[in-house]
Amino acid sequence: MRTIPTPGPDLLSARATSASSSVIRELLRHAKRPDVISMAGGIPAPELFPAGAIAEATAHVLATAPGDALQYGLTRGVPALRDQLAAMTGLDTDETIDTEGVVVTTGSQQGLDLLGRTLVDPGDQIVVEDPGYLGALQALRSYDPDLVGIPLDQDGMRTDVLEARLDAGLRPVFCYVIPNFQNPTGVTMSAERRRHLIELADRYGFLIVDDDPYGELRFEGEPVETLGSRHPSAIRLRTVSKTVAPGLRIGWITGPEWLLDAIEISKQSVDLHTSTFGQHVLSGVLSDPNWLGRHLDQLRPWYRDRRDALCDALSSEFGDRTRFDRPSGGMFVWAQFPGIGDTADVLPRALDEGMAFVPGGAFAVAEPRPETMRLSFATASPDQLREAVRRLAKAIGGAP
Amino acid sequence: MRTIPTPGPDLLSARATSASSSVIRELLRHAKRPDVISMAGGIPAPELFPAGAIAEATAHVLATAPGDALQYGLTRGVPALRDQLAAMTGLDTDETIDTEGVVVTTGSQQGLDLLGRTLVDPGDQIVVEDPGYLGALQALRSYDPDLVGIPLDQDGMRTDVLEARLDAGLRPVFCYVIPNFQNPTGVTMSAERRRHLIELADRYGFLIVDDDPYGELRFEGEPVETLGSRHPSAIRLRTVSKTVAPGLRIGWITGPEWLLDAIEISKQSVDLHTSTFGQHVLSGVLSDPNWLGRHLDQLRPWYRDRRDALCDALSSEFGDRTRFDRPSGGMFVWAQFPGIGDTADVLPRALDEGMAFVPGGAFAVAEPRPETMRLSFATASPDQLREAVRRLAKAIGGAP
Repeated sequence: MRTIPTPGPDLLSARATSASSSVIRELLRHAKRPDVISMAGGIPAPELFPAGAIAEATAHVLATAPGDALQYGLTRGVPALRDQLAAMTGLDTDETIDTEGVVVTTGSQQGLDLLGRTLVDPGDQIVVEDPGYLGALQALRSYDPDLVGIPLDQDGMRTDVLEARLDAGLRPVFCYVIPNFQNPTGVTMSAERRRHLIELADRYGFLIVDDDPYGELRFEGEPVETLGSRHPSAIRLRTVSKTVAPGLRIGWITGPEWLLDAIEISKQSVDLHTSTFGQHVLSGVLSDPNWLGRHLDQLRPWYRDRRDALCDALSSEFGDRTRFDRPSGGMFVWAQFPGIGDTADVLPRALDEGMAFVPGGAFAVAEPRPETMRLSFATASPDQLREAVRRLAKAIGGAP
Repeated sequence: MRTIPTPGPDLLSARATSASSSVIRELLRHAKRPDVISMAGGIPAPELFPAGAIAEATAHVLATAPGDALQYGLTRGVPALRDQLAAMTGLDTDETIDTEGVVVTTGSQQGLDLLGRTLVDPGDQIVVEDPGYLGALQALRSYDPDLVGIPLDQDGMRTDVLEARLDAGLRPVFCYVIPNFQNPTGVTMSAERRRHLIELADRYGFLIVDDDPYGELRFEGEPVETLGSRHPSAIRLRTVSKTVAPGLRIGWITGPEWLLDAIEISKQSVDLHTSTFGQHVLSGVLSDPNWLGRHLDQLRPWYRDRRDALCDALSSEFGDRTRFDRPSGGMFVWAQFPGIGDTADVLPRALDEGMAFVPGGAFAVAEPRPETMRLSFATASPDQLREAVRRLAKAIGGAP
């Protein structure tokens, strides 16, 4: 008698078996309980979604061009939308991007995956921020690179540390940064650091990946000059997930032509193209060139009020037992609690008290920062944020 | 002076540099000329898109649940839609699939990519039909497998040939088939061959991937029992691209739980999730359980008339100079022209005459079949199809 093999998990590829669910992710499932005020997610406030504009655009496109909006489309994206996105990308600089200079992606998460797919061979060195954005780390790790974490301070990535590593022999394919209101720290990279990074990219021949989901959510102060605009090594990831709606899953990528061509070929094999329906609807929403500006004018004070509520509550509740910088935009406050031990140990108690955050250790590349946590102020109301901070204080055990 | 390196195509990964654009794809760009009647594309007729039902569902969901429809969602997919898709998958069998038994994908192209990603290590053996679906071959090839092509006849994959290869030592991870109205040949796998394939999968311990985009477009005859329904090794790829609208980019995958769990983790890193907007809209369209049946009742005679127009024109124009089987459904006729040489050499002349097809060689895995071509009858009108066949005859040089 021969043994009949049973197809099962043994058939999984090395790539699939190395990916796994994390303890923190499991724990944060509890953050969805209705009695929990969650500052864990990095999601925008649903009250701000422009449902009316989207409904209007959908009705219009289905009445006038259903055959285009519902059919297969070009892998690179719907040309009319790409023209609009090219113009938006160029808004903060004087650069000119044409239709072919944009590839539409299924959210900027897909942009990250396609960069991994087209640029990373196993063992390649990739420079990332430490702590860094989890979704980017996860996407890149699946291509088995050598991720090199460079620490941040209040001016963003420590390019002096990067320079020392480069001098010592580091040869990355690219350096990945979120220069504006970084996830998870909320930090914005200074103009000086940006110039330094570009200089290093030129000297050592690597690409710069500028991921900027939050840049348009600036509450105060002047935007810092876009990293590497017009620079031949600059790749820019953009998305409407934080400004219009994440459910559309529409992002875009700009960069050198040779890279966009390779990304287009890869994208054809991974999903043919991003939803033409969603692209046509978004193009309809953006067809009024003033719409986005008006919409952002509603978003910014909404998020600013929440940032203020959170930061003020942290200060009044914890005083000098916590340290954080008040971010000028985005969605996150990165708070340190010196002497607290590991905030991951606080999380179960916080959930019991009815609030959730993400322990800082979850974002670590090389250096653990156990005394930190990421607090999102995007989805709770100011009153809820104040209440959540009171609950956090109880969980930490130092409530007055 | 040190040399400054310039980041460029040298930075592309091995994966990216091995993918490339094909000569035929370049040639078929001409198929989009307005004077060309194209039978090259595998795309559905836009006249049949249910724009009204989609507009109605969109207006409803944006009025009632904009916060859900436009927000981030679960990687596995919108639960209400997954319930509907699970019920549709089970329609042709008596199997019961629950919500967790479905993962929504960004078109079934993404299902193919995720299968490659989670199941294929470089050098793994994968059995495919020869000739096979180009999109599947492209998706799988990017994971560097050993693709083993098994020929088809009028009853589908030659499972006797597969058995001989297995006896000789072939040990595939999975066998990929399009059992109904295969792309490119239009052939449907017989019940006997299906049973034989399942028996082989049991004996040799491999998975069966059943990709079925065309099964619901059956014009006549009874459906053949679904391949591997209720079988623990069966993975099924489904899509609404041919029945509702490809622009939504919504497909789904069912299969063993261990595989769906691995696919969910991979999908989180490649695009987080498929458009929640599109999923909610589709769920709204499908909320009337009789809608799809009524819609398919409109589609089938439309496509059947076109199949008849094409097949009749081929017979009357070429007589016994061509051989083809009249497919009972789907979108394709696979025509052989004995003695013609390579149809790829005919294509430029056909484009000059104003018609387009895909040369059979484009679909080859191992065995070139240069005398064949794939003709799609899905998008041209019956009159256009007849005219296109006349133009083809002129291009071949044997017009009466």
